[in-house]
Amino acid sequence: MPGARVSSGDRVTLRTVEAEDVPFLQRAGANPAIRYPLGARLRNREAIDVSEEEAGTDRLLVCLDGEDAGPGRADEDDTRPIGAVSVECVDYRRPELGYWLVPAVHGQGYGTEAVGLAIDYVFRSYDKPAVGAGAFDHNDASRGLLESLGFTEEGRRRKFMFVDGAHRDMVQYGLLREEWVDEG
Amino acid sequence: MPGARVSSGDRVTLRTVEAEDVPFLQRAGANPAIRYPLGARLRNREAIDVSEEEAGTDRLLVCLDGEDAGPGRADEDDTRPIGAVSVECVDYRRPELGYWLVPAVHGQGYGTEAVGLAIDYVFRSYDKPAVGAGAFDHNDASRGLLESLGFTEEGRRRKFMFVDGAHRDMVQYGLLREEWVDEG
Amino acid sequence: MPGARVSSGDRVTLRTVEAEDVPFLQRAGANPAIRYPLGARLRNREAIDVSEEEAGTDRLLVCLDGEDAGPGRADEDDTRPIGAVSVECVDYRRPELGYWLVPAVHGQGYGTEAVGLAIDYVFRSYDKPAVGAGAFDHNDASRGLLESLGFTEEGRRRKFMFVDGAHRDMVQYGLLREEWVDEG
Amino acid sequence: MPGARVSSGDRVTLRTVEAEDVPFLQRAGANPAIRYPLGARLRNREAIDVSEEEAGTDRLLVCLDGEDAGPGRADEDDTRPIGAVSVECVDYRRPELGYWLVPAVHGQGYGTEAVGLAIDYVFRSYDKPAVGAGAFDHNDASRGLLESLGFTEEGRRRKFMFVDGAHRDMVQYGLLREEWVDEG
Amino acid sequence: MPGARVSSGDRVTLRTVEAEDVPFLQRAGANPAIRYPLGARLRNREAIDVSEEEAGTDRLLVCLDGEDAGPGRADEDDTRPIGAVSVECVDYRRPELGYWLVPAVHGQGYGTEAVGLAIDYVFRSYDKPAVGAGAFDHNDASRGLLESLGFTEEGRRRKFMFVDGAHRDMVQYGLLREEWVDEG
Amino acid sequence: MPGARVSSGDRVTLRTVEAEDVPFLQRAGANPAIRYPLGARLRNREAIDVSEEEAGTDRLLVCLDGEDAGPGRADEDDTRPIGAVSVECVDYRRPELGYWLVPAVHGQGYGTEAVGLAIDYVFRSYDKPAVGAGAFDHNDASRGLLESLGFTEEGRRRKFMFVDGAHRDMVQYGLLREEWVDEG
Repeated sequence: MPGARVSSGDRVTLRTVEAEDVPFLQRAGANPAIRYPLGARLRNREAIDVSEEEAGTDRLLVCLDGEDAGPGRADEDDTRPIGAVSVECVDYRRPELGYWLVPAVHGQGYGTEAVGLAIDYVFRSYDKPAVGAGAFDHNDASRGLLESLGFTEEGRRRKFMFVDGAHRDMVQYGLLREEWVDEG
Repeated sequence: MPGARVSSGDRVTLRTVEAEDVPFLQRAGANPAIRYPLGARLRNREAIDVSEEEAGTDRLLVCLDGEDAGPGRADEDDTRPIGAVSVECVDYRRPELGYWLVPAVHGQGYGTEAVGLAIDYVFRSYDKPAVGAGAFDHNDASRGLLESLGFTEEGRRRKFMFVDGAHRDMVQYGLLREEWVDEG
Repeated sequence: MPGARVSSGDRVTLRTVEAEDVPFLQRAGANPAIRYPLGARLRNREAIDVSEEEAGTDRLLVCLDGEDAGPGRADEDDTRPIGAVSVECVDYRRPELGYWLVPAVHGQGYGTEAVGLAIDYVFRSYDKPAVGAGAFDHNDASRGLLESLGFTEEGRRRKFMFVDGAHRDMVQYGLLREEWVDEG
Repeated sequence: MPGARVSSGDRVTLRTVEAEDVPFLQRAGANPAIRYPLGARLRNREAIDVSEEEAGTDRLLVCLDGEDAGPGRADEDDTRPIGAVSVECVDYRRPELGYWLVPAVHGQGYGTEAVGLAIDYVFRSYDKPAVGAGAFDHNDASRGLLESLGFTEEGRRRKFMFVDGAHRDMVQYGLLREEWVDEG
Repeated sequence: MPGARVSSGDRVTLRTVEAEDVPFLQRAGANPAIRYPLGARLRNREAIDVSEEEAGTDRLLVCLDGEDAGPGRADEDDTRPIGAVSVECVDYRRPELGYWLVPAVHGQGYGTEAVGLAIDYVFRSYDKPAVGAGAFDHNDASRGLLESLGFTEEGRRRKFMFVDGAHRDMVQYGLLREEWVDEG
Repeated sequence: MPGARVSSGDRVTLRTVEAEDVPFLQRAGANPAIRYPLGARLRNREAIDVSEEEAGTDRLLVCLDGEDAGPGRADEDDTRPIGAVSVECVDYRRPELGYWLVPAVHGQGYGTEAVGLAIDYVFRSYDKPAVGAGAFDHNDASRGLLESLGFTEEGRRRKFMFVDGAHRDMVQYGLLREEWVDEG
């Protein structure tokens, strides 16, 4: 059974991440098209544990529901996971967003909608004045998504990490609550 | 369900190692045709644990996918494991490659392709100037594979281990990042 | 699924011992026809643990495979366990062999073949100049097996253990590597 | 007994942090003059554990030794702790420096010397192309220290944390290996 | 305080082994003059644990008491440890004796007296028909001691262990209860 | 109390490593003059544990005893630790030596004597046909020591580790048992 519906937009739904989602998360995380832009480590299914609560982190599955999931699907269980959004460090500092979509659905605006839902979720749930997000310099898709949502580029940590064969700069973005309100 | 696809070449695919792969790994590891050339210890299935992450080690399953796996197989789950590649000690020194294929597929170039994919993986994922690999003196297949990929013989640790009835020299090979770039 | 094939002779195969073999091992170990000659303790299934590796001990299951296992069996999984061989103390002194077969297959030479395979395994795997084995004075079958394989009687520990109603002498046998080479 | 000497400059010495240093670290960490500029959490002594190695983090005590420690002190054990430097995340990304000194010694250049020794330590010990450090906007002393050592301001995470009564921006600094070589 | 008196002969006393005896036992065990003849492994004090009961083993300290301990010593605490005797495997088979004395007191008959006391202890404490003891072929002192006490050489396990630079035979001795009664 | 005497040469004594030696070992291990040539990680006292036996590793303290330790010292406890020797992997392959001396005693031949005693210890204690040792390319003192003892340079693992600001080659040395017998 899919995780519980947390929030829905025009096309995508955010759901809780459940044990049954581990194979999806692990396959996506190992996919070079996702792993290299994110600078993520390889993990097998046993190394992904969704049962322990990680303090200060919310994990959300990005799904297409009902007819968006494909022809002939109508009920709640007709849902197709297409990515994930995480909200980290909500306990003591500015929350930080992370996100990815499977390559098959790139370029259709699902990511922008999903991250927008996550920002709404954060500002409704936590007394925080801003949210942040980082993207490696070479991750144009991720940077474009953040900019389209109104994020401001706040800085660039030079040679932050070795990713996909080179030392990459981490570009840091931030969005203040009042900026989001103005946008939304 | 097979492990996640990590990297694919013309014929072989590297996947993450999952709990369901333990019987394959253990059977192969006990096979005299694999065990003696590698100098490996006998282990039963209970002694192989893929659920704990071993710090600084990546384990990859070598697979034939789709039509390469046999007639009438087309989707992602049609995959046949034929060996394994490991990348050890990536955390503090030059990573060291280990690898084996089941005897039934020897001599067809699968090993060279799989180890080549693993080298690509290492140099894309880790900021290391070189990779190493060792083969016992009597393991001609393994030594030929390394040499065909451009590895340089760097030394020979004499009487390194008692393997298959004799004290064997361990022949040490290394490949610098710039040598691989020249080759690739 | 049976344990991995470690070594095969004309008729018997040695395999790794797996969790699924515990009921067979425990029933055999409790059988008076096996327990009394060996001087073995009674154990229930919970007391037999094959999941922890015991340092310096290799445990092997003696099996009949394929057509030897019975009519209508052809593939790798058609295997019938008929006994066990252990190799103890390989880490710091002369390894010591232990072995037993179920009574139903006694007298057909399976034991001699299985122990011979185990000796080959020991001398190929470990840098040891000799193997030992002990048999109680009253265990004629075991003593005959050792002698037929070329073991030398090296001594007799008098009144070594109380077994099957009497204090029995333990007859000690040994086989040097060069003696086995001469034999094999 | 003080921790081992790791590195010495003209006036300060960096030492390993030992169990006996916990009361010093805890008192300093609770001191409002240190805690508020750093945005540090309150912890009691039991919450500070120096016995477990934290993967990827080096902790160093800043000390004044011998005559610098005060009158009448000459041998190795005459040492006075005045602060701490930490090096975090050396295992997978750009290391991040943290540091503080007790207020009594502020303004005398000890911090600059201590952080300089730590940068030397990082670039000699780890194959990293850069180090980073962050300081809250209102922490002028810390920002001045980083700038005097050649760090570049790379960005500003707005309203990063609620510290000392207000949402503070985190100013991010970085220093490339070649910039430090030019400086040193 | 020395361990409790277990048994006394004309000159030596057997006492229980206590935590305070660990430094003596460890120093003696590391002494090449004791370690090589016994084929013992090197251990530091932390590796010797006398607090856990080892099932089926009695450990006894060989001591010189009172005036035998040296001039000017008269009370119970005036005791000087000179060696140790162990009795192993008393729970399920023929007990096996082990023993050593520090080199300074060799050749004065203390060992023979101490082992004799231990044999008395075994036959009075346990319903066993025999005791055993082993000595490496090259350990003439130990073999002479056993023979002087009436032990019979029962066998020789060839190339039993690598000790002091060579593969040594283990010579096995045994003493039946009735043989000891005849002697004592 | 110092650890037990394991072996003595003309000037140095090898002793077991005890809990009381941890401060010495940790101070030396943090000393840049020792840490950088060895490529060792920084550890505090809590991170060094001598109480757990590490399987297959012997740790020895190099000491000056009696008059060599300084004026007015005569009994067994007058001993001054000056370094350490380790013997690793004795359980399954060629043992590997490691060693260091404190800088104050460099250049006086103590290291050569200590490593020579350790080689004697290894060949007397273990049935191994060879010992190995590695030294980084830039560690001239260590390489000279190995060569003076008769070790053969067997190879060079290029860019093996990042040590003291650069990627260093690990030069591998080996000494066969018969070569040592010829030398000794």
